[in-house]
Amino acid sequence: MIPFRLLAQVPLFSTLPAAELEWLSQRSSCVHHEKNALVVEKNAASTELLFLLTGRLLVVDRTPEGQEVGLHVIQAGEYFGELSAVDGLPRAASVRALEPSQVGCLAREDFQALMIRAPDIMRTVLERFALAIRANNKRRVILSLSNVQRRVAAVLLTYSAPDGLGQKTLVIRQLPPQHELAALANTSRESVSRVLRSLMEQGLIVREGRALLIPDPSAMDRLIQTPELAATQ
Amino acid sequence: MIPFRLLAQVPLFSTLPAAELEWLSQRSSCVHHEKNALVVEKNAASTELLFLLTGRLLVVDRTPEGQEVGLHVIQAGEYFGELSAVDGLPRAASVRALEPSQVGCLAREDFQALMIRAPDIMRTVLERFALAIRANNKRRVILSLSNVQRRVAAVLLTYSAPDGLGQKTLVIRQLPPQHELAALANTSRESVSRVLRSLMEQGLIVREGRALLIPDPSAMDRLIQTPELAATQ
Repeated sequence: MIPFRLLAQVPLFSTLPAAELEWLSQRSSCVHHEKNALVVEKNAASTELLFLLTGRLLVVDRTPEGQEVGLHVIQAGEYFGELSAVDGLPRAASVRALEPSQVGCLAREDFQALMIRAPDIMRTVLERFALAIRANNKRRVILSLSNVQRRVAAVLLTYSAPDGLGQKTLVIRQLPPQHELAALANTSRESVSRVLRSLMEQGLIVREGRALLIPDPSAMDRLIQTPELAATQ
Repeated sequence: MIPFRLLAQVPLFSTLPAAELEWLSQRSSCVHHEKNALVVEKNAASTELLFLLTGRLLVVDRTPEGQEVGLHVIQAGEYFGELSAVDGLPRAASVRALEPSQVGCLAREDFQALMIRAPDIMRTVLERFALAIRANNKRRVILSLSNVQRRVAAVLLTYSAPDGLGQKTLVIRQLPPQHELAALANTSRESVSRVLRSLMEQGLIVREGRALLIPDPSAMDRLIQTPELAATQ
């Protein structure tokens, strides 16, 4: 059982009427995890929907060579584990606690019943799936690019957003770590570092503290679309 | 308006009660497309759910260099276009008619209302999304493999299934065209051809007409997991 007050802080449940929140409070349970504990194990048969009440988690996967790679951070309020909660198949990835964390659990059958009664929840889950599929499609296009400079440039564009000042400049407010960019561009951290340096020298990107500016997005597009402009193989 | 009889042949709608099929028949419309016609255009703003009544379609995408690549074939009875029908965003890919085809359309609002009233449809759409996300995750792991022989071997395993005779042999009933394997393994058609030859010489795969046998799946696993065994870079 999870207190009402905590459940209402989970955005997925924020549109539920009080009676449903009451039901959810009765049906869900809460598990405490110490720092570094394995919250979800890849390939495990568990199928609950999970949501993070307090703390911070890291989704990790293992390369075929056995190396653990961080995929993304789960912040308090986010739900996860919905793949298995939807299709009943084993967990797709492992999740580790980055700090002491309280994780809420809802049985698969309860989650599915709730989606039928609460179309907002169904819509949220469907839309997040759609978002993931679209992001994967983009990644596939990036990976089809034939050299690493073009792939890194394309990855940078996917992270960028308008600067909000009405200029054509795009901005990446917090540049992700180079190993994350490397994974998305299917290259090494060293190559990412080399390409970033080269893009800076060409004036295509500009560093500003933790942020990165792309002053002329159309020049970046030309770089990505014209193989001959890309010198770094 | 689409006749009852045709709608009942679309598996997505097969569990609908007669009254819902009647409603769907009134709300949906049918469009005829000639061979080679563009059924859906990437980035178009349309958001209907689409389903193929008769004919055959090809989902295509364009590389950043402008080359059209076939992603997969849509057979009669299948639904498509559900990404935009779910999130309202532009079309993620183009679709072309491989032969004269009849395509059914259902407005986004009607589709969403139907999912709320018919949980089987909601579940089917959610499960297909989950399947796509899991396939993408697998593909990402494949792409992280450091040489082309290991990547092609991993792609072959994703297509394989038990032979149904209780043997350990896995079988790929219809080997996809080499350019499709190449796209999934992020390599050229020529490299795929070379790797297939090499795997055959090693006895890891055996050709049988259109089918391909993997007599010893654990030997394939070892090849994928042990970089030193993979000679072709």
